[in-house]
Amino acid sequence: MDNFTYFNPTRLFFGKGEENHVGDRVRRLGCKKVLVHYGSASAVKSGLIYRVTSSLERAGITAVSLGGVRPNPRSGLVHEGIELCRKEEVDFILAVGGGSVIDSAKAIALGVPYKGDFWDFFEGKAFPSSALPVGTILTIAASGSESSPVTVITREDGMFKRPYSSDRIRPVLSILNPELTFSLPPLPTAGGATDIMSHVLERYFTNTKGVELTDRLCESILLTVKNELPLALKDPEDYDRRANLMLAGTMAHNDICGIGREQDWATHALAHELSARYDAPHGATLAVVFPAWMEYVMDHDVNRFAQIAVRVWGCDMDYQHPDITARYGIRAFRAFLKMVGMPTSFAGIRAREDDIPELLDQLQIGNSTIGSFVKLDRNDCEKIYKLACREPYNDL
Amino acid sequence: MDNFTYFNPTRLFFGKGEENHVGDRVRRLGCKKVLVHYGSASAVKSGLIYRVTSSLERAGITAVSLGGVRPNPRSGLVHEGIELCRKEEVDFILAVGGGSVIDSAKAIALGVPYKGDFWDFFEGKAFPSSALPVGTILTIAASGSESSPVTVITREDGMFKRPYSSDRIRPVLSILNPELTFSLPPLPTAGGATDIMSHVLERYFTNTKGVELTDRLCESILLTVKNELPLALKDPEDYDRRANLMLAGTMAHNDICGIGREQDWATHALAHELSARYDAPHGATLAVVFPAWMEYVMDHDVNRFAQIAVRVWGCDMDYQHPDITARYGIRAFRAFLKMVGMPTSFAGIRAREDDIPELLDQLQIGNSTIGSFVKLDRNDCEKIYKLACREPYNDL
Repeated sequence: MDNFTYFNPTRLFFGKGEENHVGDRVRRLGCKKVLVHYGSASAVKSGLIYRVTSSLERAGITAVSLGGVRPNPRSGLVHEGIELCRKEEVDFILAVGGGSVIDSAKAIALGVPYKGDFWDFFEGKAFPSSALPVGTILTIAASGSESSPVTVITREDGMFKRPYSSDRIRPVLSILNPELTFSLPPLPTAGGATDIMSHVLERYFTNTKGVELTDRLCESILLTVKNELPLALKDPEDYDRRANLMLAGTMAHNDICGIGREQDWATHALAHELSARYDAPHGATLAVVFPAWMEYVMDHDVNRFAQIAVRVWGCDMDYQHPDITARYGIRAFRAFLKMVGMPTSFAGIRAREDDIPELLDQLQIGNSTIGSFVKLDRNDCEKIYKLACREPYNDL
Repeated sequence: MDNFTYFNPTRLFFGKGEENHVGDRVRRLGCKKVLVHYGSASAVKSGLIYRVTSSLERAGITAVSLGGVRPNPRSGLVHEGIELCRKEEVDFILAVGGGSVIDSAKAIALGVPYKGDFWDFFEGKAFPSSALPVGTILTIAASGSESSPVTVITREDGMFKRPYSSDRIRPVLSILNPELTFSLPPLPTAGGATDIMSHVLERYFTNTKGVELTDRLCESILLTVKNELPLALKDPEDYDRRANLMLAGTMAHNDICGIGREQDWATHALAHELSARYDAPHGATLAVVFPAWMEYVMDHDVNRFAQIAVRVWGCDMDYQHPDITARYGIRAFRAFLKMVGMPTSFAGIRAREDDIPELLDQLQIGNSTIGSFVKLDRNDCEKIYKLACREPYNDL
């Protein structure tokens, strides 16, 4: 196990009706003027935004609204939010939505007190010395952004996504009411769950030895999603299934599964470029790339792939041929993704094999590599994208 | 799943050599005078206290020392610590040791700014409005006190233990170096691991439905202890085994396994009285009481006991007779405890069946009950203590 530090001070308020107390929660932090940041009009139509602003008003807090965040949130709206916060002298940003809204809120929080362009942070040209406090009211179990220090923004001139991480933008409070996910259609529900699994898998595949506990914590979350997602799809208003998915989403990305071990994250990089180019949902691009990545790198540590096959996918261990068990596990993962309605190849997200050279250019990998479990150069990435073009097949 | 709030801001610094940076860590909090609180002379002899005070001095921090904390920490030394801190104008308490030292430090931290007797808090006569900040350098994987809000103190006039919980005494930082546990003999190593398992089990046995994820997180920790403890006993200087046990200890009691569910804690209450009366190690008394409690309450939810038997103890599920699987699991747990050297009956801690009436009086249960999975009255507690008098047997 590697040395690590861990600090996660996000206050979680989890359960039915919790969003109705958001005014009190924000007032206790001493904040007075809130930017309510959200995505589509559905948050307004459902009455959620009204309930949130009512709660704020009851607590004597003024609310300013900015909607319109799209999946794969854009730098343009971030700039708009920064200007609005400065003009209105906002002292707290409340994201009401999913990962895109939260990520957009985090980027605004970074930009408000900074004199330059917030994108400087994403390019390593500057480090933030402060940020506005961010709170969240989560409406989809997926990104884990509600208690993570990470934001991912798509820059419009060029359409490429970049992540940025800083403890300064870790939400100070997050309100998680599983009921708010009842109305979520099957596809985003499954896409969110794929994102959750991917956050775990990026941590699971590691070269660090002696990480028994975090391996098992990872497996706990994967097993939970495996068991709860199909039942949540069957009955979208099953509170407990939704609750377990929502909590799984937070645990998958608050890094309790990743402490003390090398993490990979190559798949996220490969998937980000697909999302940015085709404006495809994050979960869908991960479903396309992850099994292909697994196939490509499996031989690097067959026993680890056999372990997940047995412990998560319920495969029998073939002690004489662990590679067969390992491949069974990847096949079971792909079958699960298909069962819950996810695409598992380029065609499913309208991506084209011919675009691969451009996708590789977008990656800006140069002579460098991505990933850590296996370091991938441009050539490796090309092969993985090509594997992701095929429909799943059955050879073991 | 029940509604819950979760907030755990303890900063963890985990890994080799971390204790040598404690001075910097404390200085960054703006503190200037530290009470270094510890237990036996071995912490001094091993050079640990010297390394800690050296690190503090290098950071320009003055250290005052108070050793002598015993297992089942006493109120007398807490009073002494409070006086010393006031006299020396200490602004930070650093516990160097295990759960007893940390709990003693927490009680001192509560008492320093309070005009009355700190015991008032334990009896619900007062609520703390402030406390000194507490940090820890952990030397045994066991109590989880390094990131919990709980302290348990034994009052000397009467020899009874009482817990107290407040976010004000949750450590602001905890330094966890698994190497510091290399010198720990087999018995306290196994006793600590029993404590870890017990913290999980008190949360695992719940009547709350729909808690799939936290069930599996609990099982992760139990599986880790089951697999790592025997190997740590075989090779006490196996860093990774020690590291997994240490991290398991923190995770078992930082409440990520207990959120959103009713918890039990009857076994801890029953075991506390044994510890207080016979001055027996906490882990040993838990090993004596837990299997007896399980046997007594098993029929309340046979399937939950079958679940742990299958998922943790590797039993085959008898689908026609889940009660047989459930009993196998309890037997496997007891066999594990014996294997790692724990006592599993009254005789092993020199407790006497004849004392049971007095133990029940100590419990001060009156007409009330303890526990939540099954509410136990005085009569139930008597039966559990009596079950704990027997040596393990083999009937299924």
